[in-house]
Amino acid sequence: MARVSQEHLDARRRQILDGAALCFARNGFHATSMQDVLKEVDLSAGAVYRYFGGKEELIAAIVTEVLDTVRGIYEQAARETPPPTPDVLIPRTLARMREARPATLDNGEWMFPRLMIQVWTETTRSPAMAATLSEGYQNVRAGWARIVEGYKDAGMMPRDADADAMARAMIAVVQGFAAQIALFGGTFEESVGDGLRALMAVRPPGQDA
Amino acid sequence: MARVSQEHLDARRRQILDGAALCFARNGFHATSMQDVLKEVDLSAGAVYRYFGGKEELIAAIVTEVLDTVRGIYEQAARETPPPTPDVLIPRTLARMREARPATLDNGEWMFPRLMIQVWTETTRSPAMAATLSEGYQNVRAGWARIVEGYKDAGMMPRDADADAMARAMIAVVQGFAAQIALFGGTFEESVGDGLRALMAVRPPGQDA
Repeated sequence: MARVSQEHLDARRRQILDGAALCFARNGFHATSMQDVLKEVDLSAGAVYRYFGGKEELIAAIVTEVLDTVRGIYEQAARETPPPTPDVLIPRTLARMREARPATLDNGEWMFPRLMIQVWTETTRSPAMAATLSEGYQNVRAGWARIVEGYKDAGMMPRDADADAMARAMIAVVQGFAAQIALFGGTFEESVGDGLRALMAVRPPGQDA
Repeated sequence: MARVSQEHLDARRRQILDGAALCFARNGFHATSMQDVLKEVDLSAGAVYRYFGGKEELIAAIVTEVLDTVRGIYEQAARETPPPTPDVLIPRTLARMREARPATLDNGEWMFPRLMIQVWTETTRSPAMAATLSEGYQNVRAGWARIVEGYKDAGMMPRDADADAMARAMIAVVQGFAAQIALFGGTFEESVGDGLRALMAVRPPGQDA
């Protein structure tokens, strides 16, 4: 039997995951067959099933990998003193994720926003998927809460601000922009940073803007 | 032929829309049949088809009505001097929408978050649905931009802040929390207001929090 390098195995796995992500993003989970994935990645069934047992394993691996990447970026940000403000950190994170996966561009469009809303719909149907997504989401949420603690330590926000609620709001901004982009086009670069910056600049009446 | 009051017609229409919304929220658009809707609202096919020609008309009417309600609330807020800050206005808007439609509670759970993500997925498949949703979304976005102008007029934020980007971020927060609630449970009341308040309190390092 021929020896196959770990590098080759990893590259093959990467190729399968990216191709499957494109298929799911385009047509949704239910309308995509394993045949569609094989065609997209141009590999034999044997080559693909060596890595993944089926669609469920593919989507779980895609979601786990994306959320692990996000968590890694946020954990790194939490260690900066002070962490970058949300209007800087969120656009930077999205740009890094996009750069890390050049194969997930579909005719120049980043498939990530479409993939997100397809995953959500699938999650409402599948308890296994809900468990996978929930674990990744809790990790990202905890990562954000640590960043908020970093802001507090640097005197950038009041000690009594609700770190977990802010974590949820930061994740919501990314989720919501993803929905807008999937539905109406455009890119994250357009407005995410400016929108967060504007919101951070709102003061209650009577305080200086 | 018996005279039927407008009030009766409106109530019947309301009953059909709320029942259909529950069906779509629970099972998605594709998995819901008109038979499911008839069963949910406990009316004959003749009674329902008098109002709506099919599933597409039902979902379009639901989406249009929800977004018109949101637009109305935001237009009213834009006329307040100054408009309520986002951490107050968004939770208030969600509470009003929920109160306005008591029949859209499903065993105590507000079906609106689940309905939103089902509508998004359907929108990626249907150009007609995309046109309906896009029009409503543009109206809500324009409404938010007017509120931001109200903040500026009241000296609550810098003149050069990007009103449209902020409008998109405000809509994104609602969309993102809807996704989190649809996927993992909970309610809007839990964290939306506190999360926005925390974000508005973040200052770049070197400024006072």
